[in-house]
Amino acid sequence: MTNNNVEKMIIVGSGPAGFTAALYTARANLNPLLITGNEIGGQVAITYEVENYPGFPEGLTGPEMVEKFQKQAEKFGARIEYDYVSSVDFTQHPFTVSTASGKEYRAESVIISTGATPRKLGVPGEKEYTGFGVSYCGTCDGFFFRGKDVIVVGGGDSALEEGLFLTKFANKVTVVHRRDELRASKILQDRAASNPKMDYKWSHVVERINASGGNGNGTPAKVVSATLRDLKTNEVYDFPVDGVFIFIGHTPNSELFRGQLEIDEAGYVITDKRMHTSVHGVFAGGEIQDSVFRQVVTSAGQGAAAAMEAEKFLGELEAQSYHEILAEHGLAVPVLA
Amino acid sequence: MTNNNVEKMIIVGSGPAGFTAALYTARANLNPLLITGNEIGGQVAITYEVENYPGFPEGLTGPEMVEKFQKQAEKFGARIEYDYVSSVDFTQHPFTVSTASGKEYRAESVIISTGATPRKLGVPGEKEYTGFGVSYCGTCDGFFFRGKDVIVVGGGDSALEEGLFLTKFANKVTVVHRRDELRASKILQDRAASNPKMDYKWSHVVERINASGGNGNGTPAKVVSATLRDLKTNEVYDFPVDGVFIFIGHTPNSELFRGQLEIDEAGYVITDKRMHTSVHGVFAGGEIQDSVFRQVVTSAGQGAAAAMEAEKFLGELEAQSYHEILAEHGLAVPVLA
Repeated sequence: MTNNNVEKMIIVGSGPAGFTAALYTARANLNPLLITGNEIGGQVAITYEVENYPGFPEGLTGPEMVEKFQKQAEKFGARIEYDYVSSVDFTQHPFTVSTASGKEYRAESVIISTGATPRKLGVPGEKEYTGFGVSYCGTCDGFFFRGKDVIVVGGGDSALEEGLFLTKFANKVTVVHRRDELRASKILQDRAASNPKMDYKWSHVVERINASGGNGNGTPAKVVSATLRDLKTNEVYDFPVDGVFIFIGHTPNSELFRGQLEIDEAGYVITDKRMHTSVHGVFAGGEIQDSVFRQVVTSAGQGAAAAMEAEKFLGELEAQSYHEILAEHGLAVPVLA
Repeated sequence: MTNNNVEKMIIVGSGPAGFTAALYTARANLNPLLITGNEIGGQVAITYEVENYPGFPEGLTGPEMVEKFQKQAEKFGARIEYDYVSSVDFTQHPFTVSTASGKEYRAESVIISTGATPRKLGVPGEKEYTGFGVSYCGTCDGFFFRGKDVIVVGGGDSALEEGLFLTKFANKVTVVHRRDELRASKILQDRAASNPKMDYKWSHVVERINASGGNGNGTPAKVVSATLRDLKTNEVYDFPVDGVFIFIGHTPNSELFRGQLEIDEAGYVITDKRMHTSVHGVFAGGEIQDSVFRQVVTSAGQGAAAAMEAEKFLGELEAQSYHEILAEHGLAVPVLA
């Protein structure tokens, strides 16, 4: 394969971080190739309304936002490939990126933005009503539930943190947990215990999420209840709620990078403050490397930062070989773990 | 002063980081008060066109962007105060924030986003034609200079980095430097030396920036030349250029925080990856703590992150005293340096 076939920049993933990295690297004349993955736009694509991305006082839908991000990246020349990356090899430079459709690319630099996937309950109604009362993000959607009743599913720190956050808006927040005690930290449990809006359904699971509307007659679907099972009595009953917030964890989409990049215990790709991964020339932005903030605007900012660092790296590469650069930075050649 | 007069959240500064922090803390029901400073919107307010903020494929002007950011924050209840913070006291909690108009606020939490100011040449035409050919950001504006001739003023790393970046677009990039050698690192000098689009005017200074149009007849101003002085011969002449990029450094607007927060040698407020400053309960986002990325989208992301961390801190404060929280995190009570 001749050097002419080496891409300067491949971006893996098409959420806010990926499209922003594509916009920035395209504007830097790096002719980036973005490989979308299976779900174009990432998690925001399935969000009903986004009102916390700065610049849109009237809000917009998730799909509208994804379309704008993509259009802007393409306007400056980013190439979008509707394919799925199936394996990578970062142990040799130029790096290798292979796709499900059988293509094999070589790239001088790679930006990873494959995101994370909220863990699902896997019950009827969950998928259908996501964005219509079912949510995986209190910060994003809490504001829509002023004076409403919601349940929070989960028993860890994030379930209680998000539950407490939701008490700022909701009339009542009921934590539904499969066990009879929480995994969350003591201090969060204390704060939750002293909050009059918090209630609990211990040893309960959600079996189904029920909605009205959404049957094509112009009325959007709207969650009206959750069918709960009491694991101790086996009683099954409908519990009226306006919202179901599910916080049973996220899975970072990092399987692809195991053995290639440093990954933390929870599966997140490890980056420094400048979005560098453990392999020089491979950068990451968005939820694949951020379990804390996980917002459209934070991911977009990280994508821009990754792109700017990648641009600097490619500048170095014009004057020096990859091995000279590694030597200069005191870095080892990546070795397959 | 009774506890009723203590603000939960004061945001200092009205650039992308400040307004995004206001949006996020308002949506978190924290009733934030944003104190604008003298220049509402910060540096983006004086940008002619922004085309690298994701979500706006057609681009928009800096003032339009600021208006949207402000409108969105206000929509969710952020209060905007047109005033200038003249001093702060972070050594006692609640913190004290005093303004030029003589107001004294107490706040449980503060987010700092006072930004940075590009150093000016201070020559005629510089201020008038900023956004019309005079720029302080190659990443932002390089794309507008395809096939054009530009000068870059400065001799440090950022002057050469931005100059090299501009060669991707410009026909010719002439570095104008007051000395006969550069301060920039050897490797950057080597890269610049081997780039055929780069040229130099050693021992030269810019005396004036000249434009056509912009005299109120509907034609926007457009830079046409820079008046240069050769310091060795004292010759003064007009050098035809389409753009003047000035990279003689930035001054972070941190004077206010000296002795209150840890500040690095260049004057930037030091933050960790989660936007915490050296005082627990005081957070920072945007260019006041970022000398590297300095983009609207990176600053906005940092503002959102600072807001989310501030919200967590205020949650802790509902259950514990400030001193208990410091003890729990193993932090010392802040002491005036």
